[in-house]
Amino acid sequence: MKKAGVAILGLGVVGGGTYQILTEKKEYFKKTQGVDITVECVLEKNVDRALSLGIERSAVASSIEEVVSNPNVDIVVEVIGGVEPAKTFVTKALKSGKTVVTSNKELFAKHWTELEAEAKKMNAGLFFEASCVGGVPIIRTLQEGMQANKILSIKGIINGTTNYILTKMANEGSSYEEALKEAQRLGYAEFNPTADVEGFDATYKLSILSSLAFNKKICIENVYREGITAVDKEDIAYGKEMGYTLKLLGIGKDTESGVEVRVHPTFIKNSDPLASVNDSFNAVHLVGDAVGEIMLYGRGAGALPTGSAIVSDVIFAAKHDRYFYTNFENNKKGNKQTKFVGDFTSKYYIRLSVADKAGVLAKISGLFAKNNLSIQEVRQVAGSEGEAQIIIVTHLCSESLVKKTLEKLKTTAEVFAVKGTIRMED
Amino acid sequence: MKKAGVAILGLGVVGGGTYQILTEKKEYFKKTQGVDITVECVLEKNVDRALSLGIERSAVASSIEEVVSNPNVDIVVEVIGGVEPAKTFVTKALKSGKTVVTSNKELFAKHWTELEAEAKKMNAGLFFEASCVGGVPIIRTLQEGMQANKILSIKGIINGTTNYILTKMANEGSSYEEALKEAQRLGYAEFNPTADVEGFDATYKLSILSSLAFNKKICIENVYREGITAVDKEDIAYGKEMGYTLKLLGIGKDTESGVEVRVHPTFIKNSDPLASVNDSFNAVHLVGDAVGEIMLYGRGAGALPTGSAIVSDVIFAAKHDRYFYTNFENNKKGNKQTKFVGDFTSKYYIRLSVADKAGVLAKISGLFAKNNLSIQEVRQVAGSEGEAQIIIVTHLCSESLVKKTLEKLKTTAEVFAVKGTIRMED
Repeated sequence: MKKAGVAILGLGVVGGGTYQILTEKKEYFKKTQGVDITVECVLEKNVDRALSLGIERSAVASSIEEVVSNPNVDIVVEVIGGVEPAKTFVTKALKSGKTVVTSNKELFAKHWTELEAEAKKMNAGLFFEASCVGGVPIIRTLQEGMQANKILSIKGIINGTTNYILTKMANEGSSYEEALKEAQRLGYAEFNPTADVEGFDATYKLSILSSLAFNKKICIENVYREGITAVDKEDIAYGKEMGYTLKLLGIGKDTESGVEVRVHPTFIKNSDPLASVNDSFNAVHLVGDAVGEIMLYGRGAGALPTGSAIVSDVIFAAKHDRYFYTNFENNKKGNKQTKFVGDFTSKYYIRLSVADKAGVLAKISGLFAKNNLSIQEVRQVAGSEGEAQIIIVTHLCSESLVKKTLEKLKTTAEVFAVKGTIRMED
Repeated sequence: MKKAGVAILGLGVVGGGTYQILTEKKEYFKKTQGVDITVECVLEKNVDRALSLGIERSAVASSIEEVVSNPNVDIVVEVIGGVEPAKTFVTKALKSGKTVVTSNKELFAKHWTELEAEAKKMNAGLFFEASCVGGVPIIRTLQEGMQANKILSIKGIINGTTNYILTKMANEGSSYEEALKEAQRLGYAEFNPTADVEGFDATYKLSILSSLAFNKKICIENVYREGITAVDKEDIAYGKEMGYTLKLLGIGKDTESGVEVRVHPTFIKNSDPLASVNDSFNAVHLVGDAVGEIMLYGRGAGALPTGSAIVSDVIFAAKHDRYFYTNFENNKKGNKQTKFVGDFTSKYYIRLSVADKAGVLAKISGLFAKNNLSIQEVRQVAGSEGEAQIIIVTHLCSESLVKKTLEKLKTTAEVFAVKGTIRMED
């Protein structure tokens, strides 16, 4: 039977879940997987936390050097999070020829290329299933299930915190602030929620997922990012009436005009399979040129779901001798660089607060027409006294055209304010 | 670069799709996967079909012996379907040490154990991603993505033909016969639709999927099977009003009382993620003890989706040296055998045609109470003259209890007929 020794760096929520699965299921994995996996040591400053998990004091390493020089350790699991000291630790592990399994999306989105170069030098494995969408096996699917396909698009709800907040706003009519507070109370959002609500977390994941999907390294700088902090519950309610659900989507497309990657609040049709992905659930929708549409759905976070992804990588690494290395077409010298689409095309939902008097709708729709911005649907609803709300859904148009038109609208006397501008995806 | 030679047995729809992907993407796979795959030969009686796909006459083998004795062939793709001659061909390929990739659910459900024994002897691979749910990578997910989990349940829409028919009945109020005809016209159902509409196809797939999920060999004889030919559009309509969608589900559960595997029409709540899986789409929902809920969704059939699954297996086989063999706990001598639950527990939807007169509802609910069959919801609707319809939703109860009560109902004077009995799943 194959044997593998594991070291866990960091015993936070995910580290604890990973330790629990690996130890409680040691016999189960011997039986079902034919591999004998032992947690040889952990690296954790908080020794009490280690002891409380049932780890012997002698198995708590005092330094990364102690971990990587341990000949019984084959696989190093990094679940510290953030760039440092994780990067230094992972690099040392790879330089020592250890295979690394990580859940660290920020580290991976920022330093994948360097880390993979180190791994390749020593023929070590570098696994990162847990970095994206928790327990959902989306990385394995892209690497080992979709090989026959050129992936044309990827569209996902890849951040559970924001999905929880938006679901609460939609179902209960809560404001963003109220929903965020509830998410914090339940532990779905952190005390400082910036990484989630401003879309950084989703950007890291989209960078990793779209790189794999399109076989091109897509850096976080290439991803357009917009969070949910400015989302108004009014827009969610109006969208609902019109048959749309608001989600923070990560969207990637690989077309003849170039690659387009963006994270922003998006209206999707209620009939879209992603529309019924609620609360802290995540889902990723792919279109492949052979397979057509595929969707994966599940828990994007949590001790055991993320632990499930890490342990899956540990077992894969222990069983298979050949590791996955990327072969991104834009990573090689002399290859033409990837073209990114900045001015992307989308449908738009635009809500205006206007003067409630005759001729205003005609004037505004005239302004849209003059700017070649084609309207698919328009609604006027009563507002407060002397004010009305006009909601316009455009046909597909370029981002720049919308911006130009919005500027004109802002200087139109009858327009009090542009209240909401939300992209839509079919 | 790793090289692999492929032979394709059978050039039907799926064989054609597989050939197309392997040849059109040869260079793409060299670049993205680092493997050079060549279709060395095909076995197909209809030589014209082979020529029409662009295959040279010299590459059309005249016998299975010619295929398996070809030293350039490493991987044999079997897409003939049915038990014979597929079984003979696959066995010969395995005995010659060739790795086999198959889409043949019937062969696999019936002869997996023997085929795997042959594969193991020669250290050959045996891949079957395409046998279940077309392009959806459910086998790879169970084998290489869910290893950390004990799978507690599996629930799936695993037959596209019946899902197309039931969707049409629900959306357009068609009868079963009308919807079947339309499915046949569109090529979703075969001229002889028995394998699909009577649930045999779903039974093969559930047998394979639940064996992998629960790590126990589950034979087709262990699967309770009921097709959709008796489904009445009235029941679909009543269910809809009550918030339920009717699907042909494959259900597997591994509990302390034993293993329960069944294929039958099932009402699920409209909010269930499976309820919005429509037309010929398929989906599989798993619950793992670590990962929680996971769902995979996509196309269950078709030349390119199924071809995508086959080519994924071919590439996996070409890249990895270690193959997957099962280690079913009930396959070994001396191991205790798996206990199957025959009298399973479910909620039931029961529709009765009764005499429209005072006291009938009281009499029927009294009969339920006397049989300890607990009612969750009851509705009475007007029927034709002198007749009323009573719809009863039970709480969870045993199959045998329902059968016993139904027998009593049938001999009750005021009950004209038991019109519909449909299991429900939460």
